[in-house]
Amino acid sequence: MRRIRIHLAYDGTAFHGWQIQPDLPTIQGTLERILTGIEGAPVTVAGSGRTDAGVHALDQVAAFTLSNPIPPENLRRAMNRLLPRAIRILSAEEVPADFHARFHATAKTYEYRIVRGEVCLPFEWPYVLHHPYPLDEERMVVLARAFEGEHDFSAYAAADDRDALGLSKVRRVFSSVLERRQGRLTYRIRGSGFLKHMVRNVVGTLLEAGKGNIADCTVLPAKCGPTVPARGLFLVSVEYD
Amino acid sequence: MRRIRIHLAYDGTAFHGWQIQPDLPTIQGTLERILTGIEGAPVTVAGSGRTDAGVHALDQVAAFTLSNPIPPENLRRAMNRLLPRAIRILSAEEVPADFHARFHATAKTYEYRIVRGEVCLPFEWPYVLHHPYPLDEERMVVLARAFEGEHDFSAYAAADDRDALGLSKVRRVFSSVLERRQGRLTYRIRGSGFLKHMVRNVVGTLLEAGKGNIADCTVLPAKCGPTVPARGLFLVSVEYD
Repeated sequence: MRRIRIHLAYDGTAFHGWQIQPDLPTIQGTLERILTGIEGAPVTVAGSGRTDAGVHALDQVAAFTLSNPIPPENLRRAMNRLLPRAIRILSAEEVPADFHARFHATAKTYEYRIVRGEVCLPFEWPYVLHHPYPLDEERMVVLARAFEGEHDFSAYAAADDRDALGLSKVRRVFSSVLERRQGRLTYRIRGSGFLKHMVRNVVGTLLEAGKGNIADCTVLPAKCGPTVPARGLFLVSVEYD
Repeated sequence: MRRIRIHLAYDGTAFHGWQIQPDLPTIQGTLERILTGIEGAPVTVAGSGRTDAGVHALDQVAAFTLSNPIPPENLRRAMNRLLPRAIRILSAEEVPADFHARFHATAKTYEYRIVRGEVCLPFEWPYVLHHPYPLDEERMVVLARAFEGEHDFSAYAAADDRDALGLSKVRRVFSSVLERRQGRLTYRIRGSGFLKHMVRNVVGTLLEAGKGNIADCTVLPAKCGPTVPARGLFLVSVEYD
């Protein structure tokens, strides 16, 4: 048996997230279906982590075990032929049998995109939050840096994440930067790991700062703002040692 | 009665082109439906020209007559609220009563996008032709310039364009340039006017040159190549004196 690692990009618009669910289109479910066809036996795909319904990925990582001797590059092409256009395999390679996409990941980077202009072009709408209303962007830039370092992100976790019950909500954020450019706000956060809805709650909190609802933007607020829509969120990369 | 000119962008993916058709979603049909609602009486929208099913627009121009006294900027906002996200009104202004978006246009620019890399990302797929196969791009760059000037484009017109029967197929092309950049080919053509399918047939011919099927790339070939898919084509701008 061989362990295969893939890098993949996807447009999350039409999917109910990463994790396999009965009778709903998901990224994991779609990958397992076509790999099971290639292998002729059930294949389980383990991702670096789940992405929520509607979240996109520029470079997600996943792994699975295969007995089929197909060379990795041929496997990559075969997968791209069988997959819907919304999922593209960027690379495939053989890795040690004990490789685990989730437990061996050392860092992940997410990006959230906001369009500030009066009009949001039809081509960008599925991939951004459109916010043409007044914002004090300077306050948002300052607050973004406050998320850097090790913090208890309990307030920023989804209330309904049963899998995280009783587990530590402390996470280390290596960098947290909001950039303003050409009528857009682009937020990038790189960390050791993320709780469910954490990035979308951080962005909701940045927007609260922009609206003037947070007094001190130099420290991480105890209470988080609303969860922003999934469509502006991209998993940018997953790092391994 | 007031004459209103609008600039608009649209994602043509889900539309059966510009021109109104019974029981099919079209750009013109969608605009007329919401304007008729605003006016409380039938409104006819005249575009600078038709775009085919699946063709996009970054900046199309159209005009219509309204008795409703709503200020143009308020009209623009009201239209964007009522329209599907795939159509966005960029601007609206009052123009002289005799303004005609098609007859008064002096030039139009179209762009066609081709992705050359092995993988076409899911986000760009609806807006490009993916061509990962070998091409002599230098020959295509040379041939693109051959379309500049005044030519009879009969061979490049759609065979089924009944509206153009008996009319001149001579058109003036001001510029025709193929650019290579970061694994992409971007073709831009600016001209006095275009026949149905003309740009897509020109791009099909450029691809034939890239495949080595055209001997002399310094002159306009008498026979055109296949019509490339609509999804890579954008109407970029329409010019008026």
